Amino acid sequence: MVKTVIIGSGNVARHFIAAFSQAPEIDLVQVFARQKSAAEDLISPDKIVSNFEQLASADIYVIAVSDNAVAEISTQIPFNGKLVVHTSGSVPFSDLDPKNRRGVFYPLQTFTKDKKLNFSEIPFCLESESDEDYILLENLANALQAKHYLIDGEQRKSLHLAAVFVNNFTNHLYHIGKEICQENFVPFEILNPLIAETADKIKTLSPLDAQTGPAKRNDSNTIQRHLEQLQDENKKSIYTLLTQSIQNTNVKKL
Amino acid sequence: MVKTVIIGSGNVARHFIAAFSQAPEIDLVQVFARQKSAAEDLISPDKIVSNFEQLASADIYVIAVSDNAVAEISTQIPFNGKLVVHTSGSVPFSDLDPKNRRGVFYPLQTFTKDKKLNFSEIPFCLESESDEDYILLENLANALQAKHYLIDGEQRKSLHLAAVFVNNFTNHLYHIGKEICQENFVPFEILNPLIAETADKIKTLSPLDAQTGPAKRNDSNTIQRHLEQLQDENKKSIYTLLTQSIQNTNVKKL
Repeated sequence: MVKTVIIGSGNVARHFIAAFSQAPEIDLVQVFARQKSAAEDLISPDKIVSNFEQLASADIYVIAVSDNAVAEISTQIPFNGKLVVHTSGSVPFSDLDPKNRRGVFYPLQTFTKDKKLNFSEIPFCLESESDEDYILLENLANALQAKHYLIDGEQRKSLHLAAVFVNNFTNHLYHIGKEICQENFVPFEILNPLIAETADKIKTLSPLDAQTGPAKRNDSNTIQRHLEQLQDENKKSIYTLLTQSIQNTNVKKL
Repeated sequence: MVKTVIIGSGNVARHFIAAFSQAPEIDLVQVFARQKSAAEDLISPDKIVSNFEQLASADIYVIAVSDNAVAEISTQIPFNGKLVVHTSGSVPFSDLDPKNRRGVFYPLQTFTKDKKLNFSEIPFCLESESDEDYILLENLANALQAKHYLIDGEQRKSLHLAAVFVNNFTNHLYHIGKEICQENFVPFEILNPLIAETADKIKTLSPLDAQTGPAKRNDSNTIQRHLEQLQDENKKSIYTLLTQSIQNTNVKKL
């Protein structure tokens, strides 16, 4: 049984609270929330505290708050020598107050409000100052039946950057696709199977081998026609830049 | 029973041959392939012809060849007044020889060599010159248990353009994500669940509402740090342009 305290009640924290509550091998002792009402639908109100002085003893304190609040929150924990981890992709673990044993428990996933996630499919990036603490973090990941990886701070920073490309930017391309559909009175849902298959493909194929389309084929007629179709200068710029980038990748591959 | 002939033996044609062969309500009478060997693993060799004069009679002729060969191939069909369709997203149906009844049977999906697709999940964009032919194309889509949509040439052109954004460009962002991982000795597979969830999210959420990340939050510190991490000028340009595009979308939404 891993005794844990979750600090935070935002989107990520709420997913953690729900998952920890349901894991038979995790004892979620307490949740710290500035406003008790923010977590009362997930955990018994007597387990929620909003004053750091009331924090109970636990094996692991999980700080799941916005990046810029992590350091400050870590100073508020009224203990020394406890294992305190944050859940952020871009905050170095050295931002945590050194009065406690520090670590990272970073879930590489996008968390959506009200959309349930299966934690067993989330890869956790673990970092700690000692082997003993690493085992504790492994136990926590195992209790969630989640995959876990030893990832140091530099690697985590690059994963976070890569995640911006494959998640944030990809989602924005979906948005552009939707705008193009709407402008032409076509239901965006027609593209859903294509979007799903595009993501599915790379489980078995490298993105380099999965690449198709006019840029890959150097089909300048189609590229020209597409640019004429696009009215919006911003979409034209994105089309041009990504087309060139694919074409340059072709050249590198040859 | 819909009697069909498939013309072509490339990647898309081979997926069609496999799917038509397995559909109980489709009679795949013949396949036209320049080289018989290109389809012999999928259909009995006596059903493959490589001479247009040998083409048998059928209800629908499906031309599944590269875009720039569609028009020429359509002139070679030694019949008049038959229903002849192509499967391309960007070729107008008027490119087909008018000696036959013309139409489009465009599957909005990415076809990978040797990766089986479930045709019942592929949306087909249908276009025809008459209501009677539209019903024939609907029958064909229904025989594949596939969804189908009435999509005219202009709409199909915009779907094809939108598909470039959500498929070709998205896949290229996966490629960039993989490069960033490789440069930092992190396994790219860690990003797979994030990629899958990003695609899954938009089934229930609009991409606008699903958008997260530093650009969306106007988190200039993180954006600055990411740009410093990126060594490659091309990746920097893509990061900058897509970040600005997300930020401009924020402004439009406000």
